[in-house]
Amino acid sequence: MRILAVDTATEVCGVALWEDDHITAEIRMSQGKTHTQTIMTAIEAVLEKGRLAPNSLDAFVVTQGPGSFTGLRIGISTVKGLAAATGKPLVGISTLAVLAHQAPDGTPWVCPMIDARRREVYWSIYRRQDNALVQAAPERAGKMADVRLGGEGGCLFIGSGARLYAQALQERWPQAAHLADDKQHDLRPGVLASLGAQRLGQGFTEDLHRFTPVYLRPSDAELGAAQEGRSQ
Amino acid sequence: MRILAVDTATEVCGVALWEDDHITAEIRMSQGKTHTQTIMTAIEAVLEKGRLAPNSLDAFVVTQGPGSFTGLRIGISTVKGLAAATGKPLVGISTLAVLAHQAPDGTPWVCPMIDARRREVYWSIYRRQDNALVQAAPERAGKMADVRLGGEGGCLFIGSGARLYAQALQERWPQAAHLADDKQHDLRPGVLASLGAQRLGQGFTEDLHRFTPVYLRPSDAELGAAQEGRSQ
Repeated sequence: MRILAVDTATEVCGVALWEDDHITAEIRMSQGKTHTQTIMTAIEAVLEKGRLAPNSLDAFVVTQGPGSFTGLRIGISTVKGLAAATGKPLVGISTLAVLAHQAPDGTPWVCPMIDARRREVYWSIYRRQDNALVQAAPERAGKMADVRLGGEGGCLFIGSGARLYAQALQERWPQAAHLADDKQHDLRPGVLASLGAQRLGQGFTEDLHRFTPVYLRPSDAELGAAQEGRSQ
Repeated sequence: MRILAVDTATEVCGVALWEDDHITAEIRMSQGKTHTQTIMTAIEAVLEKGRLAPNSLDAFVVTQGPGSFTGLRIGISTVKGLAAATGKPLVGISTLAVLAHQAPDGTPWVCPMIDARRREVYWSIYRRQDNALVQAAPERAGKMADVRLGGEGGCLFIGSGARLYAQALQERWPQAAHLADDKQHDLRPGVLASLGAQRLGQGFTEDLHRFTPVYLRPSDAELGAAQEGRSQ
């Protein structure tokens, strides 16, 4: 099974190719250009590596959010277009789930955390259980002060929010808070592909008509519109 | 030649199918849902009418802007995905050019005008010349007070901005300002398809890697970010 995974939920644009049961190509681009410009270049680069045409792919995976509103719309719209044109299935995976699954083994708890701007973070809690990760708290958008550890034994923080608030986290929980290595905070499209492959293997696919980003909160534009008393 | 034209530059989501030299299907949806939800439904509805698969299309056309930032990103990303997956060419057409070309015959000047929120409009001026329309002013974003008539003989205003500011326009130029009929202000995807067919006929296609929306001004989010002194 050949799967193309696309992630534009944060500043980095990531694309991976999954063939049979492993990653055969993975690219991450963060050159300060917009996702509208980089996404096609990244997708073609990955397909070219495997000398593949889009219609030789069997499925598409995309990060469904939370993350950058603009990034999510571009990634999801592009992948919807690819899926519609090829007639191949599409699955969405939570951005926080990908980050949790790319955490190195160790602590019993993992807190994926993405910078949500306006001094807020998107976060959730996962627990290690029988060599798997189980989501232990709903996905939330909120202030750093509202973030909680999952429980005893130490919690690994991973993601752009963890990188941004590393000092605050370590000051608040000097014993319990562990920080992922600096290179581990960016989302890995290969892990996205692998989670997508699992979900497809379970027979799950999205309805292209209903599939939309998960934002967890209204956009800056919507908040601005509400403040000015107009609709956006 | 079979062309699929997609427009999500304003509140209305429009899709048209162009076969040989005429429109064979046209749909406009404005049900208060987001473009992310309606665009695939509209595209499939139009293709189903012609019993067509996406790979039987020869080219894609999309409104490149100006217009809603979110709408443009969704439309352009979707069509890029369709073009990439099918390997078929894509062309972008100015939203204002489409509006100018759907103006009924009459006045020597046409001013397409889109509501840009924040009490601004996107506008340009076209002149009738030898049974054709020629762009006579650059595309601009600005206050209504800065809008100018093209010249003598009357100017037809058309588009969501013209509808919104109809009274102001008629008070300012009681003789010269003509308003399009209320039903003519929404963009017609069939006219988009026809302009796209012309451009394709001239041998023009976009580079998928470089093709981006034309905004004419920074987004609300970017302005908000600049005001708060942070990058978006």
